Amino acid sequence: MTEDKYLSSLQNPLVKKAMTLKEKSRERKKTGCFVLEGVRELQLAVKGDYELETVFFYSDIIARNEVLKLLGQTVGQEVLVEISKEIYQKLAYRETTEGILAIAKSKPHFLDSLEFKSKHPLILVAEAPEKPGNIGALLRTADAANLDAVIIANPKGDLYNPNIIRSSVGCIFTNQVGVGTTEEVIAFLKKNNIALYCAALTASEKYTKVKYDEASAIIVGTEATGLSSEWLENSTKNIIIPMEGEIDSMNVSVSAAIVIFEAKRQRDTQ
Amino acid sequence: MTEDKYLSSLQNPLVKKAMTLKEKSRERKKTGCFVLEGVRELQLAVKGDYELETVFFYSDIIARNEVLKLLGQTVGQEVLVEISKEIYQKLAYRETTEGILAIAKSKPHFLDSLEFKSKHPLILVAEAPEKPGNIGALLRTADAANLDAVIIANPKGDLYNPNIIRSSVGCIFTNQVGVGTTEEVIAFLKKNNIALYCAALTASEKYTKVKYDEASAIIVGTEATGLSSEWLENSTKNIIIPMEGEIDSMNVSVSAAIVIFEAKRQRDTQ
Repeated sequence: MTEDKYLSSLQNPLVKKAMTLKEKSRERKKTGCFVLEGVRELQLAVKGDYELETVFFYSDIIARNEVLKLLGQTVGQEVLVEISKEIYQKLAYRETTEGILAIAKSKPHFLDSLEFKSKHPLILVAEAPEKPGNIGALLRTADAANLDAVIIANPKGDLYNPNIIRSSVGCIFTNQVGVGTTEEVIAFLKKNNIALYCAALTASEKYTKVKYDEASAIIVGTEATGLSSEWLENSTKNIIIPMEGEIDSMNVSVSAAIVIFEAKRQRDTQ
Repeated sequence: MTEDKYLSSLQNPLVKKAMTLKEKSRERKKTGCFVLEGVRELQLAVKGDYELETVFFYSDIIARNEVLKLLGQTVGQEVLVEISKEIYQKLAYRETTEGILAIAKSKPHFLDSLEFKSKHPLILVAEAPEKPGNIGALLRTADAANLDAVIIANPKGDLYNPNIIRSSVGCIFTNQVGVGTTEEVIAFLKKNNIALYCAALTASEKYTKVKYDEASAIIVGTEATGLSSEWLENSTKNIIIPMEGEIDSMNVSVSAAIVIFEAKRQRDTQ
């Protein structure tokens, strides 16, 4: 058994690197690395074939053998770094701590690298979603619905924001995720003969009246401004969830889920 | 025209009262008052017949006449208080400010005071929801779906938490909201012949297979622990949204919305 590295200095370059990656989107982009935290997140990242560069663990909370079990055969023990309480408290994000963090390599998320599981894929597209919590909830819904892909058009930030990873409870790693400009995403969908169903408050077709049995993308915009005009012009059909109360919009992850599960329901009864 | 009060001292008792009401649940319970902020929230509170005790406005952002228009005939001008920039910045919660806040009287939310709009009411029950953001999203969904009522069973805190008001974008005022212990809510639903459909990961009946055309309550628990056993034992049917991915739960407001809109869809096609 090789001896793990043990770090106790906050000034250690690895610790500093992890802190910077957590805080700075620019640094994540520059290095192609990001930080994740928590047992489930680690499991899902390993399952999603993410390459782990360094795994930090704090042995008062999680035992070395537990960590090895989590990582399975895929990760060499040389990436293991035991850290002191002080470093763990500095790096950890959560109140309910699980004693484990990692630096991992991000993936490129090219549209053309997406691999669809089904013959008639069902895809979620979100244009310019802003709040990490909303992106996380969209990814959780996509995982639960076993969607073929989630595509972010015109992203406002990078996907590996710690708040996105956290609110997705690791579903950022379980989904096929593509990223591109709105123009690129529209071209990609058309090239693959995927119907575009754009959720819009100005639409007249009720979302329950559309048939989602062929390859379909459900496309949602921001709560504040909705979808950009390129989407509405290139849409197969613009759809609406009728709002019957006093306000004119629901949470974007809620709206997306309602349409996705209607599509699932239709497909299930065929 | 009477002259409005003008406040410029942070030490003024009204300003202190507003600060305390924003921050302390105990103070809200003791006084039966709470603070709300924003144009839409004020509009919806007035529409929901909430009594406004004091309306603060900062005239650099919102003109007195705009405020009067917002309040309509329902509110005497004697409640108007113009405030200085310093006080406004101290009281205001939001980055995108709208220049207006109010102290309002809370309502008791007795179960027996709920008035159903429809003959076969559709109701959402959430047991012990914890995050203000989730409660806000549930209230937005309930408004959009024009539900007959939202009931919070075994609440973890008071409804007038500023984060609930904010994340509900004022839908706390547009919904019929009832509060009670789980035992009281179950008794209330049974007394009113309302079917109990409890969302549970252990359930075997798919949510799409249930018929929601009679009086129905859709009942959701917390993401961490689900519904308590009392619910599952008293349930008309325990229902499940199949999870086909790697994780075993969706956001609670997302799950609730999927079932609510399935019920709406069924009712719409009759």
